Amino acid sequence: MSKALVIGGSRGIGKAIANALNSINYDVVATSKNQLDTSNLKNVNEFIGNHPDTDVLILNTGGPPAKNFFSVNEEDWLKYHNQLFLGFCTILQKIKINDGGYVFLISSNVIKEPNSKLIISSAYRSAFSSVFKILSKSFAKKNISFINIAPGPINTDRTKELVNDIEEYKKTLPMKRLGEPKEIGNFVKSIVENKIKYLSGVVINFDGAASNFVY
Amino acid sequence: MSKALVIGGSRGIGKAIANALNSINYDVVATSKNQLDTSNLKNVNEFIGNHPDTDVLILNTGGPPAKNFFSVNEEDWLKYHNQLFLGFCTILQKIKINDGGYVFLISSNVIKEPNSKLIISSAYRSAFSSVFKILSKSFAKKNISFINIAPGPINTDRTKELVNDIEEYKKTLPMKRLGEPKEIGNFVKSIVENKIKYLSGVVINFDGAASNFVY
Amino acid sequence: MSKALVIGGSRGIGKAIANALNSINYDVVATSKNQLDTSNLKNVNEFIGNHPDTDVLILNTGGPPAKNFFSVNEEDWLKYHNQLFLGFCTILQKIKINDGGYVFLISSNVIKEPNSKLIISSAYRSAFSSVFKILSKSFAKKNISFINIAPGPINTDRTKELVNDIEEYKKTLPMKRLGEPKEIGNFVKSIVENKIKYLSGVVINFDGAASNFVY
Amino acid sequence: MSKALVIGGSRGIGKAIANALNSINYDVVATSKNQLDTSNLKNVNEFIGNHPDTDVLILNTGGPPAKNFFSVNEEDWLKYHNQLFLGFCTILQKIKINDGGYVFLISSNVIKEPNSKLIISSAYRSAFSSVFKILSKSFAKKNISFINIAPGPINTDRTKELVNDIEEYKKTLPMKRLGEPKEIGNFVKSIVENKIKYLSGVVINFDGAASNFVY
Repeated sequence: MSKALVIGGSRGIGKAIANALNSINYDVVATSKNQLDTSNLKNVNEFIGNHPDTDVLILNTGGPPAKNFFSVNEEDWLKYHNQLFLGFCTILQKIKINDGGYVFLISSNVIKEPNSKLIISSAYRSAFSSVFKILSKSFAKKNISFINIAPGPINTDRTKELVNDIEEYKKTLPMKRLGEPKEIGNFVKSIVENKIKYLSGVVINFDGAASNFVY
Repeated sequence: MSKALVIGGSRGIGKAIANALNSINYDVVATSKNQLDTSNLKNVNEFIGNHPDTDVLILNTGGPPAKNFFSVNEEDWLKYHNQLFLGFCTILQKIKINDGGYVFLISSNVIKEPNSKLIISSAYRSAFSSVFKILSKSFAKKNISFINIAPGPINTDRTKELVNDIEEYKKTLPMKRLGEPKEIGNFVKSIVENKIKYLSGVVINFDGAASNFVY
Repeated sequence: MSKALVIGGSRGIGKAIANALNSINYDVVATSKNQLDTSNLKNVNEFIGNHPDTDVLILNTGGPPAKNFFSVNEEDWLKYHNQLFLGFCTILQKIKINDGGYVFLISSNVIKEPNSKLIISSAYRSAFSSVFKILSKSFAKKNISFINIAPGPINTDRTKELVNDIEEYKKTLPMKRLGEPKEIGNFVKSIVENKIKYLSGVVINFDGAASNFVY
Repeated sequence: MSKALVIGGSRGIGKAIANALNSINYDVVATSKNQLDTSNLKNVNEFIGNHPDTDVLILNTGGPPAKNFFSVNEEDWLKYHNQLFLGFCTILQKIKINDGGYVFLISSNVIKEPNSKLIISSAYRSAFSSVFKILSKSFAKKNISFINIAPGPINTDRTKELVNDIEEYKKTLPMKRLGEPKEIGNFVKSIVENKIKYLSGVVINFDGAASNFVY
């Protein structure tokens, strides 16, 4: 039975991916923040000690609170540097991805179009997307695919926290609705189930046509 | 029974997509260049007269011969302007995409990283990708998804024409192999089959980690 | 005395560049649309016959009227294909850029963030930007720099045509004002005057921080 | 007399910018790493205490050693997180940029096309470019321009460290040479001297046509 490890898998997009992989008979470990907090490197190291390899890895984590640049303090930077960047680097340095496997990153559309209220997230998710791109090339020879999914507004608790009036907000979106976590779950499942491997080193906006940059 | 129209569907990537959609019980019309030559606008208009609507549309066409900028003549520019750009615009102006449908463009990785030998293709595929992005937004309210797949080196007759020594070439690729048309076919099938709709307005490199631009 | 040829040099940005190059003692030919209409290839060929070489070339032209995709007809596509793309290709195929020279393209910020009202411009300016990038590499060995300047909202007749209420529009811009043509004129002048050559193959947004894509 | 502060201004690109700004009568403070080490936040805070405001700020710093992803340790990540990201954030949070001023970032072409040997630099320079883009918008209302210059191969000690055989390397470059620091110095000088302000929120590749991504 193939294994999947879904970080941040207890709710939202992570949970939807975990469920979708379960449905195709993957042995799924889906962690909540209590089980694996990527901002705590000691915790990361212990966790990987207990889960030393996987076939599918989903790198997913909640984002920082909305903060203006001038109110971000050193503690914030360091915490989210760990949570959004260094924790993920540590996982990829230590875990074994089995040949023919997959690594999915759930990043955000702020990597291409940074958002002033989400400045911490914009910065560190960009940084990790850069690492992820580089690794896609070196892991390619083991037939391991690295796929960066950059969600826009998805129907999660996170979006409800960030947006004041969800109904008004929906009207501003091209599709007049939020995306559903299970659309991303099914998308990940489809790629894995169909063994689509040549899709690697790619950033896939998943945002209902909301972004403005042509590529 | 839902309908699919696959332009350039008699071989290579187009054929693989046609086969994949057939396998999920779509009523597929797959055209060869004899049946529909997108460089011939009169032909395009006649064809759409006979196929006025569809649920899934695949915009796909072969590319121009490799030519140096200084050897491209006016006839070449005009022919491929029709084939790679204006024929597709005409189709999208005239055909009805049914609500909840899909339009897939099979473009090329040269849209992001232009190639001097494929200058005609780089130019007109970029132009059409720009139109495609704009339309993704206006069609979103009808729940129609526009997905631009930008293939890298795929195992097709086209690639064999362009590359001298395929075996040597493979060694230079991150995955040490070409992509298979059916990987793209299955990818398209998965999206349609799972009704993944929030994926729209996106360019998806499909190139085995070959591209260098981070996004 | 070094020569400069400024296409579309009788008003707006083109005129400002012509004036700026005049101020550093270039022998400037600045054409109006009556003298050189890039949508008329015969006219282009004749003109280049009379101006077979230059040190600095400025490729600049007005844009098409705002039109919705479904109201663009074949005549429009063909006219602006010539004006924004094929005329410029023809010039670059036929004119001699002297060694150590410069080619500047004045494109538009719609090449990165396409605009539904400016769909024709978005498409063909993208196409030509792709050609321009390719040529930057082949001309580099002659120490000729290709620089693509992509203006945002500049204080020109064109902007006044496209925007209903200029004063209201300014309030939406990060700098609360339009850019001035002479800022672009001075920018071009500075590069030429200081013989800055390693700046080539680059797209330079000139938009007062208006664009949203990070790069 | 207007003030300029050039971080990393004792050699290479920083020194060339300091010299160029001196030549137009700026009161230039150019720091060496001994005077201001951006990896040391205490040092940064003290320094800004003594230099609380400026008209022109140049954010520039050397890069980390070339290291493979799997050999980067936690200490490396944290050091260069400070040096390439957090030190610069701290400066921008604490220093006053006078109205009408400029902030230039000297980043690297690895922000767009990440380099496996320069993975630390690729990551953190991307992160800071994201912050820089966001700030370009908020500072625009004070008529302060944020310009991100992304150099390619420049004739500096750094390049000599990274490249084994410089003469062979030059042959692979489109211009068959490295860029000169003073080309960047003169470029910065020109923008400041000509009060070109509408150029903001932009990334400017400075790489002699070496990059492959079209934008």
